[in-house]
Amino acid sequence: MTIASEAVSGAAAAVVESGQEATLSVFQYLLVYNAFSFTFATMAAATLFLWFGRSQVAPAYRTALTISGLVTFIAAYHYWRIFESWENAYSLQDGVLTVTGYAFNNAYRYVDWLLTVPLLLIELVLVMRLSQKETTSKALTLGFAAALMIVLGYPGEIAEDNATRALWGTLSTIPFLYIVWQLFVGLGKSIESQPENVRGLIKQARLLTFASWGFYPIVYMIPYTNLSGGAVQTGIEVGYTIADIVAKAGLGILIYLIAVRKSQAEYGEPARA
Amino acid sequence: MTIASEAVSGAAAAVVESGQEATLSVFQYLLVYNAFSFTFATMAAATLFLWFGRSQVAPAYRTALTISGLVTFIAAYHYWRIFESWENAYSLQDGVLTVTGYAFNNAYRYVDWLLTVPLLLIELVLVMRLSQKETTSKALTLGFAAALMIVLGYPGEIAEDNATRALWGTLSTIPFLYIVWQLFVGLGKSIESQPENVRGLIKQARLLTFASWGFYPIVYMIPYTNLSGGAVQTGIEVGYTIADIVAKAGLGILIYLIAVRKSQAEYGEPARA
Repeated sequence: MTIASEAVSGAAAAVVESGQEATLSVFQYLLVYNAFSFTFATMAAATLFLWFGRSQVAPAYRTALTISGLVTFIAAYHYWRIFESWENAYSLQDGVLTVTGYAFNNAYRYVDWLLTVPLLLIELVLVMRLSQKETTSKALTLGFAAALMIVLGYPGEIAEDNATRALWGTLSTIPFLYIVWQLFVGLGKSIESQPENVRGLIKQARLLTFASWGFYPIVYMIPYTNLSGGAVQTGIEVGYTIADIVAKAGLGILIYLIAVRKSQAEYGEPARA
Repeated sequence: MTIASEAVSGAAAAVVESGQEATLSVFQYLLVYNAFSFTFATMAAATLFLWFGRSQVAPAYRTALTISGLVTFIAAYHYWRIFESWENAYSLQDGVLTVTGYAFNNAYRYVDWLLTVPLLLIELVLVMRLSQKETTSKALTLGFAAALMIVLGYPGEIAEDNATRALWGTLSTIPFLYIVWQLFVGLGKSIESQPENVRGLIKQARLLTFASWGFYPIVYMIPYTNLSGGAVQTGIEVGYTIADIVAKAGLGILIYLIAVRKSQAEYGEPARA
């Protein structure tokens, strides 16, 4: 196995030499396979739900729903690709799982996050409907911090040793902490000026963002455990998948509910969540 | 055949060893093949019908139609995948049906149900247009019970012996009975407060849900019969397929009719079913 192929498939990846039996069990392989397919379906359904919802909110909140739907749309695209890459990396025939030699491309996740994570913060800012100036400045600083967090995390994800993984993981935590501080202190005052019937929902959205984003570093640290190679890889893929569903589709639903309630409060729209 | 592959393809599945003649007859294979293709077309058509219908109902009922269409959209996606998996699992050449060794992935059904079954109950709750509070609580409790029912059913579906199948099947029946109780007792009072011209339709929708969902356990129990392996697998696939069409596309049409009539009654909308 070359260093290059190991770098691509990640520290926890199975040995990639064509025809060899995989370090993953058949059950682990299929669990990840079905999780990827499930997530594609969930993200695609969430996208359509959010975009259809645009006609049910006041114009001021439509951009928030457009962007929420873009996030799940981009995620749906990447889960489709990840699913195909996973399928191509293994061959399951006669009940035996072998590696085909084609590396599983886990860079799709980081490419996805580079696009979607800044957008997730922007949808949260947009649904709050702050002043134009504040919206622009918050969207820019939070979006930049989010992109930096992803860029710093990637070298660690593909590192072969856990020390390098820890170094980049720690660097990535700095912008993450800045985002958390902004969400809880910087946006705290703006939340208090929101209509009463959505204040709770906005706090839930903030908490969901914090909790689901906090789950990613936990998954990132799975290689430090004593688990076997197959269990590590399964844990990483399924873990990131669950975190993605909560952070993207889950947040999208909350943004939709906030947008509907704010429309009702401000314009007396007859739409119902 | 290894235990793992048997677990994957299900208790009733054909032996998966490449090149062997299938336990299914050519007729049985083609019946399932065409049933899957038929169901993809039905679900895709129902999706478009329901989404086009959004513009013909009052805004308050659009979410019910959006979600009804999402259910059939998700089902269409999964029938596409199931069809491809079925095609890959067998080879029909020169009139002889052999197995390719690639296992048929019947997990797609459960992955589909995990998403769609909670949504089916939510569309039923949404079209009733209860208070915001009641809508949220009913949607959450019924949705959770539905997801639990699916999760408990799956270990039985892939079990190799009928005792394990019966155990998980029985556990899965507990949330099912809770849902039935909620539909007939919990929602009973709300149905009486619906406009007179839709009360009958809502009761029909409830009955259709009860009857079609009650059909799934019957299909689940096919392996207990004295039928041969091929007949069992054909019965399961065709049985679940019929149940899916009734429960998803059939319910969707009823939801559409209810939404149109309620719009007319409440807003005098000119739309016609």
